[in-house]
Amino acid sequence: MIGRVCIVGAGTIGSLFAGHLAQVVDVCVLTRRREHAQALDEHGLRVTGRTELTARLDATADPSALPQFDLGIVCCKGTDLETVAASLEGRAAQATLMTVQNGLGAEDVVRRHGDWPLISAITFMSGTRHSDTEVEYILDAATWLGPYEETPLARVREVEALIRSSGLRAQAFEDLRPAQWSKLVFNATVNGVAALTGLPHDFHFGSEAEPTDLGRLVHALMEEGTAVAQAAGPGTADDPWEMNVHATGRGSGHYPSMLEDVNAERPTEVESINGALVREAERLGVEIPLQRSLYALVRAREASYS
Amino acid sequence: MIGRVCIVGAGTIGSLFAGHLAQVVDVCVLTRRREHAQALDEHGLRVTGRTELTARLDATADPSALPQFDLGIVCCKGTDLETVAASLEGRAAQATLMTVQNGLGAEDVVRRHGDWPLISAITFMSGTRHSDTEVEYILDAATWLGPYEETPLARVREVEALIRSSGLRAQAFEDLRPAQWSKLVFNATVNGVAALTGLPHDFHFGSEAEPTDLGRLVHALMEEGTAVAQAAGPGTADDPWEMNVHATGRGSGHYPSMLEDVNAERPTEVESINGALVREAERLGVEIPLQRSLYALVRAREASYS
Repeated sequence: MIGRVCIVGAGTIGSLFAGHLAQVVDVCVLTRRREHAQALDEHGLRVTGRTELTARLDATADPSALPQFDLGIVCCKGTDLETVAASLEGRAAQATLMTVQNGLGAEDVVRRHGDWPLISAITFMSGTRHSDTEVEYILDAATWLGPYEETPLARVREVEALIRSSGLRAQAFEDLRPAQWSKLVFNATVNGVAALTGLPHDFHFGSEAEPTDLGRLVHALMEEGTAVAQAAGPGTADDPWEMNVHATGRGSGHYPSMLEDVNAERPTEVESINGALVREAERLGVEIPLQRSLYALVRAREASYS
Repeated sequence: MIGRVCIVGAGTIGSLFAGHLAQVVDVCVLTRRREHAQALDEHGLRVTGRTELTARLDATADPSALPQFDLGIVCCKGTDLETVAASLEGRAAQATLMTVQNGLGAEDVVRRHGDWPLISAITFMSGTRHSDTEVEYILDAATWLGPYEETPLARVREVEALIRSSGLRAQAFEDLRPAQWSKLVFNATVNGVAALTGLPHDFHFGSEAEPTDLGRLVHALMEEGTAVAQAAGPGTADDPWEMNVHATGRGSGHYPSMLEDVNAERPTEVESINGALVREAERLGVEIPLQRSLYALVRAREASYS
């Protein structure tokens, strides 16, 4: 029985979880900045877009001030995960923690700081954060979750039911890894190409009529990534190229986070996404020259920040 | 005997030629913009940096107003060459024309518009254009030139001597093609990587200590390009990778023109540089997957312009 949820990190995804879950369960929020926690405490959190609601929340930037909770949803960016996981060490002994970071290996980072039961998750929902206390819910896609190590599937199903009861979409899997690989290959390619070219995820990514069309490169990058997923064991659940064609066919022109990051000269998630893919390929002896190039170019783009 | 030189296109390179050559020979300048010609006529052209001089010039934006000349140095950007060559059609019947565009194929474009004797050239000098009437001479490197088709080597040597007498560096070659290929492979790689990453041509391009260092990618790109040069026949004069290591070792941090172009959202020379390389590789059946990716990514970067 989940009585209280702690949302760890209230960026876009964390805010969407917090606002919705607060409608059905007690929610506390751990933020990085103290002003952010104060604003949430004072004004609550407003969700607009696909859902219209206001949530009352307990927020703090001090991990030692957190109440006990049953489920922690760790929503910080991959680049902050080590720090955030360390701040939870020795706390919330009864809790299950769920990671929703992009890329590979978030569960391992958290595991190094405690023996909580862990749930692996990836989310396809998206939104835009307008302020510390307002988030717009744009794409009402699902969060997928599955057991990590010995976590019972029943626990995963309980979390799935809770998320659904809050108005968000969720789907539990016995083995999430093929879906994680699909999303990793998709993300490494789409985020990397967008960050370098400045293009949102638009029709160019799916165009392969001419030999020089961008879709040819995107397709080749995704085939390399899929070969790594197969060598790693799980393979891919959905074909990343079909995910790409489907998403660009909708004409959303979504701005991948890595493009937003390089435009703002912020550190990107290139290490936990592209770097993770390249390192897995090396470990497994799979040649992925195009993905390696993409990785080197995005790292160089970060090195160019003034 | 060269009595008058026409500089066609007064960007940075054209201005450097015009300012220096006007010290030793009559110079007329054909500009694209009428205000530019008027400013040059009124104020002359000032050169600063490696050389300090002021030149009086006859300038016009109207090809039909050009006087007869003996040598035309075609200095416009590759993207303007077709238009510029067409504007010279039927004129300057006694002149030799010299092309200094980046990439491959400039001579062919000019040839389609007249049967002037042609000289192939590439230049390594660089500068910064501060206004329509002032250019700073920064890198006092040579212009290399060689005969195209049946142009006698003696004519090339005459132009070499004239350029040297003006204070610029020049070197004539019996066969310029290996040097053109060296510069093409160098330019395709350095310009493409700089345009995508935002890095000037700095130490990152020569670093290959770690497997993920940018220099590894730069090296692999240059090896692909060198294989095309070899398949095409001429091979490379200087090894592009050594040119790269030498240039970055000087620590100049030069901003390649393609990086300046994408930052200003201007059309780049990607077609006459990277496109030319990719098309030659296709024609010759050489596989260059990394250079193809670079080409597709720079084209996509152009497609992102608002």
